[in-house]
Amino acid sequence: MKPVNVLYAQSGGVTAVINATAAAVIRAARAQSQRIGNVFGARHGVLGMLSEDLVDTAQLSETDLGRLALTPGGAFGSCRFDLRAPQDDPAQYDRLFDVFAAHRIGVLLYNGGNGSMDTVVKLSAAARERGFPLCCIGVPKTVDNDIEGTDCSPGFASAGKYLAISMLEAGLDLVAMSGRRGRVFIMEVMGRNTGWLAAATALATRGNDDSPPHIVLLPEVPFNETAFIDCVRATVERLGYCAITVAEGIRRADGSPVLARGATGAYVQLGGAGLHVAHLIEERFGYLCHWAIPDYLQRAAGHWRSATDLAQAEAVGAAAIDYALAGRDGVMPAIRRLADDPYRWDVVPVDAAAIANLERPVPPAFIRADGLHVSAEACRYLRPLIQGDVAVSSDEGGLPVYGSIEWQPLARRLPPYPG
Amino acid sequence: MKPVNVLYAQSGGVTAVINATAAAVIRAARAQSQRIGNVFGARHGVLGMLSEDLVDTAQLSETDLGRLALTPGGAFGSCRFDLRAPQDDPAQYDRLFDVFAAHRIGVLLYNGGNGSMDTVVKLSAAARERGFPLCCIGVPKTVDNDIEGTDCSPGFASAGKYLAISMLEAGLDLVAMSGRRGRVFIMEVMGRNTGWLAAATALATRGNDDSPPHIVLLPEVPFNETAFIDCVRATVERLGYCAITVAEGIRRADGSPVLARGATGAYVQLGGAGLHVAHLIEERFGYLCHWAIPDYLQRAAGHWRSATDLAQAEAVGAAAIDYALAGRDGVMPAIRRLADDPYRWDVVPVDAAAIANLERPVPPAFIRADGLHVSAEACRYLRPLIQGDVAVSSDEGGLPVYGSIEWQPLARRLPPYPG
Repeated sequence: MKPVNVLYAQSGGVTAVINATAAAVIRAARAQSQRIGNVFGARHGVLGMLSEDLVDTAQLSETDLGRLALTPGGAFGSCRFDLRAPQDDPAQYDRLFDVFAAHRIGVLLYNGGNGSMDTVVKLSAAARERGFPLCCIGVPKTVDNDIEGTDCSPGFASAGKYLAISMLEAGLDLVAMSGRRGRVFIMEVMGRNTGWLAAATALATRGNDDSPPHIVLLPEVPFNETAFIDCVRATVERLGYCAITVAEGIRRADGSPVLARGATGAYVQLGGAGLHVAHLIEERFGYLCHWAIPDYLQRAAGHWRSATDLAQAEAVGAAAIDYALAGRDGVMPAIRRLADDPYRWDVVPVDAAAIANLERPVPPAFIRADGLHVSAEACRYLRPLIQGDVAVSSDEGGLPVYGSIEWQPLARRLPPYPG
Repeated sequence: MKPVNVLYAQSGGVTAVINATAAAVIRAARAQSQRIGNVFGARHGVLGMLSEDLVDTAQLSETDLGRLALTPGGAFGSCRFDLRAPQDDPAQYDRLFDVFAAHRIGVLLYNGGNGSMDTVVKLSAAARERGFPLCCIGVPKTVDNDIEGTDCSPGFASAGKYLAISMLEAGLDLVAMSGRRGRVFIMEVMGRNTGWLAAATALATRGNDDSPPHIVLLPEVPFNETAFIDCVRATVERLGYCAITVAEGIRRADGSPVLARGATGAYVQLGGAGLHVAHLIEERFGYLCHWAIPDYLQRAAGHWRSATDLAQAEAVGAAAIDYALAGRDGVMPAIRRLADDPYRWDVVPVDAAAIANLERPVPPAFIRADGLHVSAEACRYLRPLIQGDVAVSSDEGGLPVYGSIEWQPLARRLPPYPG
């Protein structure tokens, strides 16, 4: 019997190493060509499955794969789309299984975060109910590091390393530019509900309280304006400057988001917390505030990726194929920490149903008692994750050469959807 | 007779390679120890000269210098301070020459931009008038690339390369995340009066009109809201997404700055042009807008520095010492372009008085006819400047090791100032 095919797709915000996971999946599958047929990709996650917008990764040479592994962004395209419950939209599930059947899909690998694990759980259950032989596996990725059941999430550490080093470097600028008036640098980083990326910037201090960032504001801690303002003033009076990391999702004690004045719902995604904090400081003290919002840059940067992160992104991809061959339906390969220093880790399967839709916050032990910075314990956790560099160099035009794949669409076998 | 000492200082916004200029100055002076005594540094530019806040670079070992050369920021501290005319504040000049005399300063090297060249011109004239044997030399640096008389300014190309690659990488993210709704990425870059940094991001297209950035807004071109909006819509309708570079200083035809609604004077420095443009697009089309403002990150980044820029930063430092030894008072070492491809350049002296306080805009020939992008000629000019990488690697903590100098203050010989 012809071996079954694998369908791989990317979902949610992309990362600097999600394509390394994709490349690892493809390589691991090719190494098992007796048992695995083709690795197909769906464009833009489950949306591509529904519209039968599929590609065959057989078009990629080994050179292409090597380049893909080092290319930021999501080469298959991503999506933000949640499947409804089967009883609410049975036609949607009928369509998905028609697509799976038409392309002999026996393994579905969904590379995403908390919401994507829910898709894995739903499709796994639906397959069992229908008696469809499908092994569904969730493959973790998120810069937010908020997936439960894994010590860390591939994609997080590269973004965290980029932000920590950006804070360190901007701090050098801040120190050079400081003068009598007092100068403040604010960097607003991603993290609507969890402050892992903000916490990662604390590594820039190297344990020195006088080094940037002097304040780290996390969504897990209600924003205490008075304590914050006092700390800014004390820092500027002591050093002449103050560097602050603000997670985009910080909230007040009543749960309302901290936004720039006049900002309404539509502006939330544009970042408001950092600007609000800058206004506060300027009004109160007249310090000169500089404000950065790296936005996409923090999760797309090819420089300052973590070699540890890259290795873990590849490891979960390869493990997903191993699990598929072992018939482990409904699991997610997770990173397990074995030791902090020297850092050791391995990959173990966890039940996707047990972790789907959860959101892992920065734990209280990782937050300094005053709520304005992280603890030494947080740094012990974070430090090994950003170890090692990933070399990327530029071509004669001064730009890095990333993979740019012209996907050849797989021939459609079904009518359009919706029909 | 004991050889005279050199006083070196940094002024204006710092760059990722200004310390490379400092290291080159120190090395060139050490190589001429028969003719040059010590290289002293003033902390925070002319402010340190006035307050006699000086340091002796003799404390730096060759290892220190190597590390200094690769450290972003301004190791001596910078300032934004303009000298008044001698007739308006003779006491200020008396003080400066007292400091120069007390420390046997025979050469003054002021490392800065347009305003700093004015300081050079003023001090050179004052020295001549007083019969004080001082050779004043301006050493160029600015990320804004707006110094006249030089083909480019050290510091610009590293920031430009960082921004071009950031746009390229954020563009990969944008493409992956694009969907039916239309998605827009806006990056607001430095450039209050000139659009050189915005122009540099155009290199990310590699000459392909469909590659990010699709629009580049420069301060040199009055903001035409209608033409801009039409171009955004056409791009999103064609590709599904649109990436836009906005210089912070874009203005309307009447000269008023383009700011976010509700933004007042105090907010200008926080960036408003990018936010305004994002609001426009969201309101008009409902596209999802992401908005980045790299701020300090663009001029402090140690990764993606241009090797060409680094070499030029070192060359102007070494040339400044050469000029001093030749007694060339009142000049600035400038980069002269000899050929585009392969790129060749050398360093020539220009008269500081002829270029001080000028501001070189992006010329009309570098701007596309519709004012919404740069021309191929601009890319021909820009491309060689970002060539070559500067390798930086991280330590076992995952962070780059930059120089962190504990300056030992030079003993004061004068009473405090103001007395």
